[in-house]
Amino acid sequence: MSVDSFKQYLNQTFAISFDNETLLLEALTQRNYLNEHPDETGRDYQRLEFLGDAVMQETVAEYLFRRYPKWHEGQLTEMRIAMVQTRSFAHFARQVRLNEAIRLGKGEEMNGARDRDSLLEDIWEAFIGALYLDQGADTVKRFLDATLFAAVDTDFFDHFIDFKSRLQEKLQANGPVDIDYNTISETILADNSTCFEASVSLDDRELARGTGKSIKDAEKAAARKALNSLEDDTTE
Amino acid sequence: MSVDSFKQYLNQTFAISFDNETLLLEALTQRNYLNEHPDETGRDYQRLEFLGDAVMQETVAEYLFRRYPKWHEGQLTEMRIAMVQTRSFAHFARQVRLNEAIRLGKGEEMNGARDRDSLLEDIWEAFIGALYLDQGADTVKRFLDATLFAAVDTDFFDHFIDFKSRLQEKLQANGPVDIDYNTISETILADNSTCFEASVSLDDRELARGTGKSIKDAEKAAARKALNSLEDDTTE
Repeated sequence: MSVDSFKQYLNQTFAISFDNETLLLEALTQRNYLNEHPDETGRDYQRLEFLGDAVMQETVAEYLFRRYPKWHEGQLTEMRIAMVQTRSFAHFARQVRLNEAIRLGKGEEMNGARDRDSLLEDIWEAFIGALYLDQGADTVKRFLDATLFAAVDTDFFDHFIDFKSRLQEKLQANGPVDIDYNTISETILADNSTCFEASVSLDDRELARGTGKSIKDAEKAAARKALNSLEDDTTE
Repeated sequence: MSVDSFKQYLNQTFAISFDNETLLLEALTQRNYLNEHPDETGRDYQRLEFLGDAVMQETVAEYLFRRYPKWHEGQLTEMRIAMVQTRSFAHFARQVRLNEAIRLGKGEEMNGARDRDSLLEDIWEAFIGALYLDQGADTVKRFLDATLFAAVDTDFFDHFIDFKSRLQEKLQANGPVDIDYNTISETILADNSTCFEASVSLDDRELARGTGKSIKDAEKAAARKALNSLEDDTTE
């Protein structure tokens, strides 16, 4: 996708239109592309990535701080780490089609860099840096409301959080306990996939059940539910 | 110093006055203080520290990004790391007398926590978090202009940057070279302290000279000068 098409897409999808289009171009430009186009006078994305990295950290921290007034700093930190990481940023870079608009050097294109998570993370951050400079903090928040923050209401970030360890830490806070996971059922669904149900027990008392496409996922879902019920008075 | 005296000091020195004084109190309160005062209903500083850490990262990154438009991301990152670190934050926490105003538990007071860099770093971040929530990003910037950012114009942060390694990296970028440091002179000053002068040479050609209170400081100053002259076209 050309940078012009991407600008159109941004406008139609997010009602975002850059005043200084050089900033957008800079965020989308990889160093070797410039080496191969000596007529281009602009810069590559790396300075904007430096800024955007910090803008992401701050915006996500503030979002979590305000949204979960009862969470303690350990919970806030864990969720921030889940949100602000390579796989997460690469996912949202693809969602908003940044991957299609990057101006890559030929060698990088051949090596498949356009689909590499580490590059997509960098470009996501550089884009956020450019958006922040050009349109300000409020527009960045609005853009993240439609992308990263919207995913908080789904189970998207659950993949990044180790609920079983978290439950274990919580239950063992006052000394060793016996935590058991059991697979309760295994159901073949209409689409031929399998759905597992698992339970988690503390000293033979069942705390919660969860379902998932694998035993591991079902156990994780059970741990998450158990945690939620244990933390009812400290969470949102 | 009582929290009330600190509020007065903040007002007189920085023209800062909190609308929500609970936020200021929270930033200054350590957990065990609350355990020892069960009548207090507030929280300790840790959630505000989570927010303030991110606010500091962002504000410093943006300051450096705008101030040094020609620095590449490696230089920006090195300077940000020098500015955003325990020793730096503890220094400025003392400068603005936050150390005197912390509400500490008795055990921590006995253990000398009031002068411990790690606690002062936390309190600095918590205070910035509270200031950000209460007065907004512009007031935080103004406060940092008078403290952390003012120090950029002195050699305060030079202590944290390894100029000799930085010079070596730069000079060896295209292969091995011969870098030498020589002590040129040693002068006893009026106050009986010693001033050293050192030079740095590349393949027997002198690049720069520097002075300092120790040979190490003099060599570092020489490396810094050599770097500055080498980077003239890429720095500010």
